Amino acid sequence: MSSEKYHQWTKQLQKIADLRYTQALLEWDQETYMPEKGAEFRGQQIATLASIAHELFTSEELYLKTHELLQADYLISAEKKNVALIHQDISKEKKLPGTFVEKLSRATSTSFHAWHKAKNSNDFSIFREDLEKMVAIKREQAELIGYERHPYNALLDEYEPGTDVAFLENIFSDIKTKLKPLLDEILSKRVVKPNLLHGAFSKEKSLELSVFILQKMGYDMNAGRQDEAAHPFCTTISPLDVRTTTRYTPGLFADMLLSTIHEGGHALYEQGLLPENYGLPAGSATSLGIHESQSRFWENNIGRSKPFWTALYPTLQQIFGQEIAHLQVDDFYYGVNEITPSLIRTQADELTYHFHILIRYEIEKALMGKEIEVKDLPSVWNEQYEKYLGIKVPSDDKGLLQDVHWAHGGFGYFPTYSLGSFYAAQFFQTATKSLENLSSDIGRLEFGRLKAWLNENIHQYGRLKSADEICKDVTGESLNIDYFIAYIRGKHL
Amino acid sequence: MSSEKYHQWTKQLQKIADLRYTQALLEWDQETYMPEKGAEFRGQQIATLASIAHELFTSEELYLKTHELLQADYLISAEKKNVALIHQDISKEKKLPGTFVEKLSRATSTSFHAWHKAKNSNDFSIFREDLEKMVAIKREQAELIGYERHPYNALLDEYEPGTDVAFLENIFSDIKTKLKPLLDEILSKRVVKPNLLHGAFSKEKSLELSVFILQKMGYDMNAGRQDEAAHPFCTTISPLDVRTTTRYTPGLFADMLLSTIHEGGHALYEQGLLPENYGLPAGSATSLGIHESQSRFWENNIGRSKPFWTALYPTLQQIFGQEIAHLQVDDFYYGVNEITPSLIRTQADELTYHFHILIRYEIEKALMGKEIEVKDLPSVWNEQYEKYLGIKVPSDDKGLLQDVHWAHGGFGYFPTYSLGSFYAAQFFQTATKSLENLSSDIGRLEFGRLKAWLNENIHQYGRLKSADEICKDVTGESLNIDYFIAYIRGKHL
Repeated sequence: MSSEKYHQWTKQLQKIADLRYTQALLEWDQETYMPEKGAEFRGQQIATLASIAHELFTSEELYLKTHELLQADYLISAEKKNVALIHQDISKEKKLPGTFVEKLSRATSTSFHAWHKAKNSNDFSIFREDLEKMVAIKREQAELIGYERHPYNALLDEYEPGTDVAFLENIFSDIKTKLKPLLDEILSKRVVKPNLLHGAFSKEKSLELSVFILQKMGYDMNAGRQDEAAHPFCTTISPLDVRTTTRYTPGLFADMLLSTIHEGGHALYEQGLLPENYGLPAGSATSLGIHESQSRFWENNIGRSKPFWTALYPTLQQIFGQEIAHLQVDDFYYGVNEITPSLIRTQADELTYHFHILIRYEIEKALMGKEIEVKDLPSVWNEQYEKYLGIKVPSDDKGLLQDVHWAHGGFGYFPTYSLGSFYAAQFFQTATKSLENLSSDIGRLEFGRLKAWLNENIHQYGRLKSADEICKDVTGESLNIDYFIAYIRGKHL
Repeated sequence: MSSEKYHQWTKQLQKIADLRYTQALLEWDQETYMPEKGAEFRGQQIATLASIAHELFTSEELYLKTHELLQADYLISAEKKNVALIHQDISKEKKLPGTFVEKLSRATSTSFHAWHKAKNSNDFSIFREDLEKMVAIKREQAELIGYERHPYNALLDEYEPGTDVAFLENIFSDIKTKLKPLLDEILSKRVVKPNLLHGAFSKEKSLELSVFILQKMGYDMNAGRQDEAAHPFCTTISPLDVRTTTRYTPGLFADMLLSTIHEGGHALYEQGLLPENYGLPAGSATSLGIHESQSRFWENNIGRSKPFWTALYPTLQQIFGQEIAHLQVDDFYYGVNEITPSLIRTQADELTYHFHILIRYEIEKALMGKEIEVKDLPSVWNEQYEKYLGIKVPSDDKGLLQDVHWAHGGFGYFPTYSLGSFYAAQFFQTATKSLENLSSDIGRLEFGRLKAWLNENIHQYGRLKSADEICKDVTGESLNIDYFIAYIRGKHL
């Protein structure tokens, strides 16, 4: 039974959520409809909302109320968990003084602009100093937050609570010892064919198809929408307003389609959080790894599967008509499953992708541990690409300048991408066992049962279950990369 | 020379502006792209931002800073004016206790829903009680704010600072004694022809034309945009992000086009405010009357003029081709200038429009002065329409339920619509004298000089000049309805 105090506390958190979700709308608008000159005041508007939300969240008033509820004996278990998580969040956020938050925010903005310029002019030297400053600030952040064993752990916790270097070392050592030989084996045995999906698919029809698929997935378009943006993303304005974006590039049909499905997977997670938990930990995703598991589940395990493309083929014919008269189901299936080492992470296939992550993981961990310096990054980066993917990086704009994450201070973010794919494979294996004839559902583009299963087993809990608790409850064990390996092996060998 | 204290004070006001403009984005999004179910949390998000802005604006800290600057001797004149206006705004806002603001906000929401339902079911009784409550609350508001002579004055001040019942009585008595005979004369002499603009103009082409005209007007589309919405409006997200909306209804070509021009006029005012004054009174429009003068200036004095339609005709032919093969320039000119008493304010012509306003003005003044009661509104409304426009109101949905303003608590808003048209005619008369061969500019759709003239004489000052000061500085005298009468007489007789 909810007490009045708990109810009042919830109201206060909802107010903070109002600010945070409104900030998300400012950002969504910036990427979709904001006129060019609007940028001048938009940064300041976003910063103001962020700073007011921070002030309210770290206010003495909220802290005391939370502390009081922490001792209360009248709360039910979910309420207790909400209180404990907020207490933990506040304690963490309070460790960062206002001056530090401002410094980080200013540095992020400056370093983003330097990165952008450096990337466009293919000149790392433009970004170097800002990146050095950013690394120093992130090390300072780790010290302020505090950590055991490795400073990187403090940063990981922001994106993937409950994980640490020890856990990731296991995963990434599996990538090196198990995934690398598998990649080599696949590459040695593959029959390279021309990828026919690199032809032109017209824009309007591609957009029509993308909405068709989102609806088939069960994405509620009355509680969301799809727009065009420079980069595909998913953002939440409220649990009943979860938006995705897509990007059309001529010749990159598969890229658009798979990223639509990917963002749709993220959107289903956000739409699967319960509106009654608005503003509470129970109403937020539990970790970026689990979030990514939902996008990869749909993108890889469904969207790169044979039954999916077989089922989709008649719709493709209907929508694209003569444009695809020369393409068979197999051309689509091959086109979205071709394994080829490449330079750009976001365009990588589902297997080599993890070596892109491995490289970034090792670099950022070493930067935080002061084992390498920023000035050495170009050579380290290029060596690693040679070592793990066997390719030469021709220039820094296609090398270590390709991703925005470090410019944004997002150290500790990359590993969650790999965790997501591995969780996805493990969840899919369980789903296949739990839902009889799942592949026949996929073969009819009937995803009702599957979406309900994800809602029930994963989405609805929000942060009430940790990533590891969800993984164990759903699959009976903690994260195990062997499911991913079996999935890849079954498909590609 | 700006002191550091003034600079800090400005920063604080900018923070409040960030919240208010972000609230405008939440509202813009609600009317344009928000998915249906998003409504559930949107109201709360808007309320949270409004309440935080109110808290910050009425905070002791800002009040003391403002009070200190009010005594300072080191400010230049514009700075002094900014301080004085903010001091006045805060003093006014502080008169309304938080409990009152909440009550008003709750009542607005409830009464809006009741109005909506009442209008859709054509049943005033559904709305009556809520309107009675709203009237009582607005009377209370007038008492809290304080007033001289008439409680309505306290409410007018919110929309048209510097105006009062005495001033409006002059204007509306002119409408009755000068405009009414003029209308009767025009109606007795007019030759009624079929309005050929009620045919179909296709949507895509109408939208193309509307953007063409906005650009011709000098609306900066890199600092604004046009979208579709249920109602045309203009909203400001920042001085460099001023958005308009339009609405396409088959058969209502003139309605869409003129409302596009109307909103474009509002947008030019907002884009003409100086970005360096963001958050300050100098960066805000001075009154709704002057705002409306800018929209009506473009809509009526330009957009309903013969040279405009003559100049636009080739473009119309180019865009609509065969669709308008049967229409000549005169058909367009007649179509947008037909004078006919009608039921709906927003669809009224430029002359009868003011009788719609007169009726609303007399009713709301009488409501505030306790001279009539809400229960009498349907009969009062219908009598007045018979008296001033000679038409019978067939049902309340086309009568006193047609406008949302009272449901929103907007008592005192309507008169600004008439003031706007009258200011516009007066400004246009001066512009014609100041800018040699203005009608030749219009006849080439060349609005550069005219826009610059409006920017320089009206827009740039924001609230640094009051409505009356602007009117006197621009035209040499205070508002005088005779310019409007001369304009109508010259055109229609």
